[in-house]
Amino acid sequence: MPSVELSFDPRLDLLFQSEVDLSPAQIWAAWTQPEHLLHWFTPAPWTTVECEIVLQAGGIFRTVMRSPEGQEHTHSGCYLEIIENERLIWTDALGPGFRPALEPFITATIALKPLGPGRTLYTATARHRDETARQRHEEMGFTAGWSKALEQMVAHMQQIQAQAKPA
Amino acid sequence: MPSVELSFDPRLDLLFQSEVDLSPAQIWAAWTQPEHLLHWFTPAPWTTVECEIVLQAGGIFRTVMRSPEGQEHTHSGCYLEIIENERLIWTDALGPGFRPALEPFITATIALKPLGPGRTLYTATARHRDETARQRHEEMGFTAGWSKALEQMVAHMQQIQAQAKPA
Repeated sequence: MPSVELSFDPRLDLLFQSEVDLSPAQIWAAWTQPEHLLHWFTPAPWTTVECEIVLQAGGIFRTVMRSPEGQEHTHSGCYLEIIENERLIWTDALGPGFRPALEPFITATIALKPLGPGRTLYTATARHRDETARQRHEEMGFTAGWSKALEQMVAHMQQIQAQAKPA
Repeated sequence: MPSVELSFDPRLDLLFQSEVDLSPAQIWAAWTQPEHLLHWFTPAPWTTVECEIVLQAGGIFRTVMRSPEGQEHTHSGCYLEIIENERLIWTDALGPGFRPALEPFITATIALKPLGPGRTLYTATARHRDETARQRHEEMGFTAGWSKALEQMVAHMQQIQAQAKPA
């Protein structure tokens, strides 16, 4: 049984939506396979230097981002719902095994809707506990960050696809 | 696919286990149907005066307890995993729809293992974010509270069962 329908509250939540020239399966692979995620997840000039994924409810989703100067930022959470090629939900309010986390901030949802061959409506939602957290996330550059990461994802996955085709 | 195996960390977690003269299905009903839960969930002399359950991942689990003097305490969280008659997991680190909560404290698991007709091994686990939270929960009377509530559950469900039998 899938989870309850998630409400969107504009006072508390942030939304990023874009039409993308990738199939839902390509975007799903980009989000759930570390070898892809390492290439696009962090907006340049920062990079993703570690990625740990256990793609199961309660499983860890952990990334380490690094700045050009070597500053590192670790983000750790766990998956809540996994519907292949359709919807991925995770939160940093819980750690692996659903244990309450020390620094809860968001619950994130990636929803994928096919728009035709090789084209997808990509919807990312960040849900927060209060207006302050939402505002902080917006000021951290939510929209620019997710937009830049998505551009990097499309470039990476299209490159993979081009390489996979016979010459 | 069920969730990951949950680890138990004695520095962070609390465990309550008991053999109970109820079937897994009876205990499941007691935990998931408000009309039962209202009768046993809160150790006397406090009572449970409200109970809201949407038995679905991300669905609300909300209770209101009241003291004999009329003091009320509301506790709200959401379900993470529902495996009928076997395992129920919820947390107050997330509210309904998986939104990060303002006052995260525990993730709770009820696990049921049949021991024979009308008898069940009942295991309740409370997972916390750190040792301080675990200790606070222990000092709040975790063991005595869960034990007393379970006694009340058994008494209520056995009474229901006796009433259901023809005279």
